[in-house]
Amino acid sequence: QSNVTVYGIADAFFGYGKMDDNKFTGVESGGWAGSRLGFKGSEDLGNGLKAVFTLEYGIELDDNEGVGSGASRSRQQFVGLQGGFGFIGLGRQYNPGYYVFKYDAINVIPFSPQFILAANQGSNIVAGTPARVSNAINYKSPDFGGLTLNAIYGFNEANQDNNRQAGDTAAVGAEYANGPLAIGLIYSQVKQDAGAIPTEKFNGVADDTKKEAYLGAAYDFGMFKLMGSYQIIKDATAAEDDNKVWQVGSVVPVSSAGKVHLSYGRTDADADDSDAAAWSLMYSHSLSKRTLAYVGYTQVDNDDNTAYSVLAKRTDETTGAPLFDEDSRNFLIGVNHSF
Amino acid sequence: QSNVTVYGIADAFFGYGKMDDNKFTGVESGGWAGSRLGFKGSEDLGNGLKAVFTLEYGIELDDNEGVGSGASRSRQQFVGLQGGFGFIGLGRQYNPGYYVFKYDAINVIPFSPQFILAANQGSNIVAGTPARVSNAINYKSPDFGGLTLNAIYGFNEANQDNNRQAGDTAAVGAEYANGPLAIGLIYSQVKQDAGAIPTEKFNGVADDTKKEAYLGAAYDFGMFKLMGSYQIIKDATAAEDDNKVWQVGSVVPVSSAGKVHLSYGRTDADADDSDAAAWSLMYSHSLSKRTLAYVGYTQVDNDDNTAYSVLAKRTDETTGAPLFDEDSRNFLIGVNHSF
Amino acid sequence: QSNVTVYGIADAFFGYGKMDDNKFTGVESGGWAGSRLGFKGSEDLGNGLKAVFTLEYGIELDDNEGVGSGASRSRQQFVGLQGGFGFIGLGRQYNPGYYVFKYDAINVIPFSPQFILAANQGSNIVAGTPARVSNAINYKSPDFGGLTLNAIYGFNEANQDNNRQAGDTAAVGAEYANGPLAIGLIYSQVKQDAGAIPTEKFNGVADDTKKEAYLGAAYDFGMFKLMGSYQIIKDATAAEDDNKVWQVGSVVPVSSAGKVHLSYGRTDADADDSDAAAWSLMYSHSLSKRTLAYVGYTQVDNDDNTAYSVLAKRTDETTGAPLFDEDSRNFLIGVNHSF
Repeated sequence: QSNVTVYGIADAFFGYGKMDDNKFTGVESGGWAGSRLGFKGSEDLGNGLKAVFTLEYGIELDDNEGVGSGASRSRQQFVGLQGGFGFIGLGRQYNPGYYVFKYDAINVIPFSPQFILAANQGSNIVAGTPARVSNAINYKSPDFGGLTLNAIYGFNEANQDNNRQAGDTAAVGAEYANGPLAIGLIYSQVKQDAGAIPTEKFNGVADDTKKEAYLGAAYDFGMFKLMGSYQIIKDATAAEDDNKVWQVGSVVPVSSAGKVHLSYGRTDADADDSDAAAWSLMYSHSLSKRTLAYVGYTQVDNDDNTAYSVLAKRTDETTGAPLFDEDSRNFLIGVNHSF
Repeated sequence: QSNVTVYGIADAFFGYGKMDDNKFTGVESGGWAGSRLGFKGSEDLGNGLKAVFTLEYGIELDDNEGVGSGASRSRQQFVGLQGGFGFIGLGRQYNPGYYVFKYDAINVIPFSPQFILAANQGSNIVAGTPARVSNAINYKSPDFGGLTLNAIYGFNEANQDNNRQAGDTAAVGAEYANGPLAIGLIYSQVKQDAGAIPTEKFNGVADDTKKEAYLGAAYDFGMFKLMGSYQIIKDATAAEDDNKVWQVGSVVPVSSAGKVHLSYGRTDADADDSDAAAWSLMYSHSLSKRTLAYVGYTQVDNDDNTAYSVLAKRTDETTGAPLFDEDSRNFLIGVNHSF
Repeated sequence: QSNVTVYGIADAFFGYGKMDDNKFTGVESGGWAGSRLGFKGSEDLGNGLKAVFTLEYGIELDDNEGVGSGASRSRQQFVGLQGGFGFIGLGRQYNPGYYVFKYDAINVIPFSPQFILAANQGSNIVAGTPARVSNAINYKSPDFGGLTLNAIYGFNEANQDNNRQAGDTAAVGAEYANGPLAIGLIYSQVKQDAGAIPTEKFNGVADDTKKEAYLGAAYDFGMFKLMGSYQIIKDATAAEDDNKVWQVGSVVPVSSAGKVHLSYGRTDADADDSDAAAWSLMYSHSLSKRTLAYVGYTQVDNDDNTAYSVLAKRTDETTGAPLFDEDSRNFLIGVNHSF
């Protein structure tokens, strides 16, 4: 009898993208969910206490890459204890903001307006961004009548004398789920490294911390599910911008196996003419309990000073100049299999 | 009950090689078959349809390398659907030519005349060469009375404006197997990248496609098995050569567990004095259903302008000059274990 | 029924270290034992013979690393045969000296005086140092009434003309275990590469081999266990030093689940004022058969010319100069889970 469960997701899609004259055609890994391979288990320690571990690695299904060779090669790796007090873990673990895909109607992260817009503001909490914290201690509370708390602190471990917290990540999340309603509130901050600090601010006080706040909600009306979010990303860059991203969406079951997914999102940025918008329309079809087919379209409507893209490049293939104010159009069809 | 089968091959051999004054002594991974670790599974979707996935990584059993860290670190990674229509998969998958080891009497790929000679002509279809295609769609037909078809298209995904197919791979294979007879016919092409294109050819028309055709056959006479192949590799290099490789071989059972394997191959190259030949003699002994011991010798007889090698280097250790017209002599003894 | 056992260790700790003004606070992988993920199996070949394999990879539980991406990314990878004659394996395997943690009271390798002092003399046999040999043939004898022999030879495989053994490793170990007594004797040598050879020695004869000898013992008195070792490391550097490391320690059960671990070690180095010492005090508590919590402290007392460290850096954060004659103080608390 094994102490380990081997699990994962194999997900790939055929995609076509266009942005100005740039055109992308290809096969990509991880549409509906990131392809992954994991190993997990638990051991009963008595008195309601359990030891748990998870080793989970990103897989580039389309490429010549090994287990955990991509950019998010280690999705999560931890050992921890679980009991009446909740969970405490040591290792590389998710930012509490990772779970906000619950308030996003578009499961296909790279095609999701929420992800595309937030990632371009420098967010690192929502899934698809670097929403993981290395060298971290994570605490998750038990369920208090639908309310759960989640806090993480990750040590950067680089500086040893001055500014020892530089690069450290701290985040907390509170989520409430009861019947048809789900609400999530996240706060996350990263102490900037010295080199990345916007050094002068109001009254000459250096503000060296990137801050993000996120509020999301979903309500299941039965006929359809409504979801949306509002996110503030502050001091993510030297420009010390205070940018906002919001999105609303809906998931509509149209048959026993089929669902239509819709989302619209917009940026409200400090910089001039930088309010990009994006929308997405998807259809998903469950082929079984563990296998799902999906097809969809996502468009980014760039502003005069933005060049956000999805599949095709955001820069002119010849000159390398950013493709400002161009639409990014993206189509995909894929299959997701969990094991 | 797990949805995943963990499988693989652990194969290592002690090898000794000599080429001119260069001598190699060492322990290598992957003689009889490349060492590997894989994860695969399938799910019944009803109506004869199945979802399938495979994640398979190369292992360097002798070195300080992780899972999938070598040159062919991802052997194959795909998700697909299988049914009455055949199989369709998305991911990194084998070129139809990968399977031509069926027409080769020498299973030990690095010691096989077919592999050594074809690899040196720039082939990338036979096993041991880069016979895998990233970002690929693969279709395999059902079995039509012994006949199967296999087609793959792999997107290079690099260029987005002109020459968008540059680097793309397209290949088809037809194989027939019935009783003692097996025949395979493969065609594969790779659109060369701009930098690698032989730009001028007949009438100033650029021919930017590397083409390979392969015909192989095997017949089992009971007392012994006879096999052979003929392969054309065209425009693999800027010299626009049209090179051929052929080999004949035989596998002779000599006891209930033992087999003798023999092969001879030769190159017919466009360039002057570049017709290298190679031969190999092996003995394999099944220790069980999953474990096999093997011992063998392979020699490459280089021509005046070739310096093909196996274990020892092909260049002078001191000067770095190619060792033209020298024999490469190679001995190995190893063990192969499947799990 | 699977032919593979998936196994491993997930181990992480919170650590705090201080050396002069350098301070480290963080979460690290692998305290009580290195985090790892492995795949192993065996097959009965009849007549008492078995085919065995092991693929075992290091895991950096705290970082964004894949399976086998760290410095000792491949812990061991081999295929072999086991029977009445003992074991013979091909692949990357442990130096016989790897197992000397049996004579060390401190399981937490990075905090063990034996490891810290030996690693700083350039040892590469004890666990924690590069105690693994690539391209290796390993022979282990059967148990002769408590006595076992272990021999390994690893080919460097780099040089092909002169000095072909350069970089090769050869090691032998003899261990005796009977009732409360365990004794181990190890000899290991590495032929230095040309560039690393101390070229002139007595009478102009080049001595190009790094040599290590180790004698360790443990005796279980029931109330406590006593252990110790003496190690000689010769010609590890161009200075051709002949350095010694010794340590004594004890493990004292204090309850049904708890143990106190104590160790003191010292270097006797050729160079002036280079005799660093280290001591460690730990407490371990078994939470179950597979899970253990541990807490401990290790201090290195550096000499006038040594700057050995554990968690905090050994060099001044600002100037980069070595922190000679400073104490390295280190605290940890962690959890180890085997699966």
